[in-house]
Amino acid sequence: MRYRMEGATVITLDGKRTIYAPGQLTWENGEIISVGPEDSDPTPVDQLILLTDAYLLPGLINGHNHAAMALLRGVADDSPLFEWLQDHIFPLEAKLTAEDIYIGTLLACAEMIHGGTVGFADMYFHVDQVAQAVEQAGLRAWIARGITGDAETGQQSLKESLEFAAKWREHRRITPMLGPHAPYTVSFDLLEQVASAAQTYDLSIHIHLAESPQEIADLAQRKTTPFALASAAGLLSSRILIAHGTHVSPSDVDYLAGIRGGIITCPVSNAKLGNGILPYAMLRDAGIMVGLGTDGPASTNSLDMFLEMKAMAWLQKLAGGRPETFRADEALTAATTGTASVLGHSGGQLAVGRPADFIVVGRRSAHLIPEHDPIANLVYAAQSKDVRYTVVDGQILMAEGIITAFDEQAVMVEAESRAKMLIS
Amino acid sequence: MRYRMEGATVITLDGKRTIYAPGQLTWENGEIISVGPEDSDPTPVDQLILLTDAYLLPGLINGHNHAAMALLRGVADDSPLFEWLQDHIFPLEAKLTAEDIYIGTLLACAEMIHGGTVGFADMYFHVDQVAQAVEQAGLRAWIARGITGDAETGQQSLKESLEFAAKWREHRRITPMLGPHAPYTVSFDLLEQVASAAQTYDLSIHIHLAESPQEIADLAQRKTTPFALASAAGLLSSRILIAHGTHVSPSDVDYLAGIRGGIITCPVSNAKLGNGILPYAMLRDAGIMVGLGTDGPASTNSLDMFLEMKAMAWLQKLAGGRPETFRADEALTAATTGTASVLGHSGGQLAVGRPADFIVVGRRSAHLIPEHDPIANLVYAAQSKDVRYTVVDGQILMAEGIITAFDEQAVMVEAESRAKMLIS
Repeated sequence: MRYRMEGATVITLDGKRTIYAPGQLTWENGEIISVGPEDSDPTPVDQLILLTDAYLLPGLINGHNHAAMALLRGVADDSPLFEWLQDHIFPLEAKLTAEDIYIGTLLACAEMIHGGTVGFADMYFHVDQVAQAVEQAGLRAWIARGITGDAETGQQSLKESLEFAAKWREHRRITPMLGPHAPYTVSFDLLEQVASAAQTYDLSIHIHLAESPQEIADLAQRKTTPFALASAAGLLSSRILIAHGTHVSPSDVDYLAGIRGGIITCPVSNAKLGNGILPYAMLRDAGIMVGLGTDGPASTNSLDMFLEMKAMAWLQKLAGGRPETFRADEALTAATTGTASVLGHSGGQLAVGRPADFIVVGRRSAHLIPEHDPIANLVYAAQSKDVRYTVVDGQILMAEGIITAFDEQAVMVEAESRAKMLIS
Repeated sequence: MRYRMEGATVITLDGKRTIYAPGQLTWENGEIISVGPEDSDPTPVDQLILLTDAYLLPGLINGHNHAAMALLRGVADDSPLFEWLQDHIFPLEAKLTAEDIYIGTLLACAEMIHGGTVGFADMYFHVDQVAQAVEQAGLRAWIARGITGDAETGQQSLKESLEFAAKWREHRRITPMLGPHAPYTVSFDLLEQVASAAQTYDLSIHIHLAESPQEIADLAQRKTTPFALASAAGLLSSRILIAHGTHVSPSDVDYLAGIRGGIITCPVSNAKLGNGILPYAMLRDAGIMVGLGTDGPASTNSLDMFLEMKAMAWLQKLAGGRPETFRADEALTAATTGTASVLGHSGGQLAVGRPADFIVVGRRSAHLIPEHDPIANLVYAAQSKDVRYTVVDGQILMAEGIITAFDEQAVMVEAESRAKMLIS
């Protein structure tokens, strides 16, 4: 089947930042086969979708998630962090069944599809169920089983990670990763084993690093930093997705120069948990890739990349002390090609041969009128509910706000019921 | 006509934070005549609206706006502040006609109604047109003509302010205020004249104070602070709405103790322009009222109070360094009873005898499932597009997303065309 959408303002985010207004995009077998001004491709198609008053742009890619935690959205919110984790989140997670995680992930996928997210990097457990939910929902995902413990207690989670990778690595939309949780939950020797396994099995790594001031202080007592430790363990020799990285220091930049991968900043989570603001300008100037993610919905309460773009821009301008220190375009880039680059994925821009992963955002709403600057409108004013179409691997997962890939209403009912059971 | 809505989770925000789940609200002649559990009021009504999967709560009140600047949304965004004002905003504002301001305000009203805002405090010019737009849209508004200049050059704007006040002061939904712009745009003797006129004509004051570090530095050279200056000019003797107040110092608190009115914080504007974070905890501990506003849509790009609640919570937690330093409920309070208290208005909570100004937010969306905490859901996860009904003074201005009070589509077309003309 060959498809075309025509009539929207097509924002390619390619190297030249080309915008076709109005433009067209044609795709087949999950791949973009032409993009350009309206009427620029005369080849016939099987389905033509005419759009007016809309932006067509690359789908957003959520670089850090614990999707199934959607079931725990809002639990004991605004509590002190340690109390929140020890008294609420950890006991509830211990009760989560594989089926809970399947439904929780599907609920999260529904939210992401509505919000124009086409793919996400996830770290959680019962990852077979995470992958099954992703397969059903139609999204793209980079999935890591969280690895914790020491060389002894952590073997089971490493073994499960490798079994998962062997089972799913050929899937068209799913990429397994290795997920050593964090320097404070994984022993150094287990980090070394993970680094070695990443090399042996050609897997990328997803890890939390430098999220909180506490983590930096704890590692300082061991005379190291999260980045020095990751480097010493060999983790930086493979492609690596560093979640947060909020407290990266100028001297840490040396460890990051030249790595494959980069940092996924989660500004809403970092602000809401009081953790801080990423020194983005320093990383940008050093040429280090920065993508964008939401973190899990238990801490951020939503999986809304439109909110994350706003939060990133607001916090960076606040940190810079001047409006010109961060541009709307940088937030949109982080949410698309930024995350894609960290993951080594060719998505995040619209060009021939790239994946047909894109979204359509309606602009016929008072809050998007007038249109002096489409990028400013998308980043500063658009809401995730403005998304009309979400297309992944060429499949239309949502059309005019209706998810076609699965029964979203049934998932919401089931998720609500399981969530209530969990806390009862 | 007597109306009732029944079946939603009714969040009253009254002194006891009563929630009826499910509940009912009955109103007549613009006033709430009963609120309580479902089936608690047996009196017959003319119209009964049955709701499911929804929150019914007080409407949000936007405490600081320059609504007609919606026409300039996104112009030269991310530019240095001085360049943005001098080279872009001021020249465009000089071209704005009375009709532009009427259409721009109507466009802003459409956006606010969609986003669950029931009233707003505005400062701009051509205020007769602002009031006409508000009258037509059905919102509540506190309107001030911006006053600038010295005792000579500012007379015209003061005169217009008093004429406007005389003309509109008996309007049911419109309250004129006096709007001395800021300490750096109004001379001290004109500030004294405004303070005197406020007393003579029993008008409240709306002023920008302590918005930027630059303003504090400039006044420090004159050996004063924005609050000391306002006090010396006599402005604090009348009810006063202080927009921003971001750089209020511990010693300024003495000036604010016991005033009628308070501070309207605009967190998105303050972050996006790099101005800073309000020391909210200090004001809360000192018992000073804090409400919430968006500032004008040229600087914030939207008039979205759901975004402002999120931004307030995120920034306060970031400043506090811990998640428990600010609660979701405090953001919702600021956006409702907080702004109402600053304005001396009895809205912002649902109780018998209070104005029938409320909204219905749909909760049947993946991003609001499950419901462990309704307030956390509303503040951290809900979007303005989740608003289904907006009711002001008992009139249903929007039903299931459709504005009934005026032709929104025509306003959008007209606004887009005028905006394009302005920059051509």
